[in-house]
Amino acid sequence: MGTAGKVIKCKAAVLWGVNQPFSIEEIEVAPPKAKEVRVKILATGICRTDDHIIKGSMVSKFPVIVGHEAVGVVESVGEGVTTVRPGDKVIPLFLPQCRECNACLNPEGNLCIRSDLTGRGVLADGTTRFTCKGKPVQHFMNTSTFTEYTVLDESSVAKVDGAAPPEKACLIGCGFSTGYGAAVKTAKVTPGSTCVVFGLGGVGLSVIMGCKAAGASRIIGIDINKDKFQKALAVGATECISPKDSTKPISEVLSDMTGNTVQYTFEVIGRLETMVDALSSCHMNYGTSVVVGAPPSAKMLTYDPMLLFTGRTWKGCIFGGWKSRDDVPKLVTEFLEKKFDLDQLITHTLPFNNINEGFELLYSGKSIRTVLTF
Amino acid sequence: MGTAGKVIKCKAAVLWGVNQPFSIEEIEVAPPKAKEVRVKILATGICRTDDHIIKGSMVSKFPVIVGHEAVGVVESVGEGVTTVRPGDKVIPLFLPQCRECNACLNPEGNLCIRSDLTGRGVLADGTTRFTCKGKPVQHFMNTSTFTEYTVLDESSVAKVDGAAPPEKACLIGCGFSTGYGAAVKTAKVTPGSTCVVFGLGGVGLSVIMGCKAAGASRIIGIDINKDKFQKALAVGATECISPKDSTKPISEVLSDMTGNTVQYTFEVIGRLETMVDALSSCHMNYGTSVVVGAPPSAKMLTYDPMLLFTGRTWKGCIFGGWKSRDDVPKLVTEFLEKKFDLDQLITHTLPFNNINEGFELLYSGKSIRTVLTF
Repeated sequence: MGTAGKVIKCKAAVLWGVNQPFSIEEIEVAPPKAKEVRVKILATGICRTDDHIIKGSMVSKFPVIVGHEAVGVVESVGEGVTTVRPGDKVIPLFLPQCRECNACLNPEGNLCIRSDLTGRGVLADGTTRFTCKGKPVQHFMNTSTFTEYTVLDESSVAKVDGAAPPEKACLIGCGFSTGYGAAVKTAKVTPGSTCVVFGLGGVGLSVIMGCKAAGASRIIGIDINKDKFQKALAVGATECISPKDSTKPISEVLSDMTGNTVQYTFEVIGRLETMVDALSSCHMNYGTSVVVGAPPSAKMLTYDPMLLFTGRTWKGCIFGGWKSRDDVPKLVTEFLEKKFDLDQLITHTLPFNNINEGFELLYSGKSIRTVLTF
Repeated sequence: MGTAGKVIKCKAAVLWGVNQPFSIEEIEVAPPKAKEVRVKILATGICRTDDHIIKGSMVSKFPVIVGHEAVGVVESVGEGVTTVRPGDKVIPLFLPQCRECNACLNPEGNLCIRSDLTGRGVLADGTTRFTCKGKPVQHFMNTSTFTEYTVLDESSVAKVDGAAPPEKACLIGCGFSTGYGAAVKTAKVTPGSTCVVFGLGGVGLSVIMGCKAAGASRIIGIDINKDKFQKALAVGATECISPKDSTKPISEVLSDMTGNTVQYTFEVIGRLETMVDALSSCHMNYGTSVVVGAPPSAKMLTYDPMLLFTGRTWKGCIFGGWKSRDDVPKLVTEFLEKKFDLDQLITHTLPFNNINEGFELLYSGKSIRTVLTF
């Protein structure tokens, strides 16, 4: 290839400000510096977290290139990169794994100190690799995949099996892994258990797939939108209910349904009230509840601590608790071995240029996951 | 013995109302009914939970016989009792284990449905076995050990090694097991970890002993009363600090002290603010915090759910998570094998008649545990 070491001109979807549509622009992508990797994106999913930047509910500087759930191929590498080489198929990692910080060194930790969840908007050296109309453009969560080419720190890249189909495996970069891991890795769902999943979007469906893979015998899906029930049942829910169908608190409804044996509950919406409902709904003594949905920022949650004192466990996780560079390649292998099916989560595939249409599908509730291909 | 099947007249410490001293009275103890056991008490500890009845912060009817941390010997058994016989040394269990309810049937559950934490005040058949001056006297948490003789449901009795010294092993009935279990069973402290214990009373010291037994390499004790530090260091704390010695939040002080590597924290006070401090003080991503101190009843706790979402685990436990009938005999055996030392927790031993003096020692903060002997 003749592009290594050179600036690449390509197309990207640039956000110039809050509540503006994506603008497809020609940008310049600088070559990777030391310990960096330049990647040609092949497919990228549209995730609610990207929308948080559009809506301003996550802080960012502008202009910015968002997108964080993708598959690509390495175009070139900077000095000192040892874990990938040009031509490798890779998944960008919004949660890096530096293998040096104390979260990475702990067997249970995965929130690497090099993560950029607070909108720093630059790579490790404090600068960006994107330019548009002469202006520097911000990175997003170390990934920025809504572009034909991006640059990533080596700690934010996982080499995966070259056979992985990009337009499906991209979901392993965020939505699928977040939900699936919450069940199998964070909650460690046990065979024969009863699980309840609050919220049946793409991540909620992935939680159901995780509960099923872990051998749960009963998986109850909950949503106020009954249109979601069919898909939830298809991926493994054994029954679905709407809290609107009863005047009782949902925890009582579930206790009645199960003879008070709910072992695991998952909140996959990000609502404070539902987080407390989910905690209350698992068994008072041996139940575990996992917060998967991101809570609204700067909001406090109020609950009765007796819910915890009597023996419940309340957990949270980011990216399903996976150690990204170690676990993402394994998840891709399991996908290729057909241990789980991503087709159920992908409702729409569109050309990259139609990105604004993809976000409209998200807002309308008509899509589970839309994947953009290049 | 000539007492089987007969009413026994004996001494008991009766509480006639809220905020009254104990009155040593002659009471009548009826013979055990089917599936019940009558026990002669040999020694009983004074625990803060007993005081909650005196102060009215736990609901009870009066008159009542409290006390729940004891060792005794079986005097006689009712029809159908198969697990103990007259002459057996036993520990009364304020947390029964019926082996039939769904908490007992779950490997991780221990809050048996037959527990009486809400002040029912009677045995399983709905009646009491105590009479004083012609009036029925209430039971307390299925145990009532501040009496020479008590009657217990078979599910509230653990047979233990006859070699156990009553005036020490009684602590296994509540305080020691609650703290020790919070560390080894509920938190499952790992070797080499850093632990922090908020509150250095008898249960807090037992948490420290559990952390040490589990192989923690650093155990930081926290109390605003520095008089407690010497004993905490003696039982295994590697250092002790007072939150009053810094203007920084305690979570920052601990992060600075440890390079942000606190893996386990324990709240052993029962204060809402400290519960949130303890959660904040463990590592944001892989830390586990355990609520050991009973929260004030009917008070809500407010916290930032991001503390959980980023990967912490928050747990509660009663009686250290032990399954009482299964685990108490094992703990007694471990004590006899010198795996832990209860002498450190016992500061005073008094004759039963001096029970009011024992409570004065509790109020003055001069005692860790006072044991009453008969």
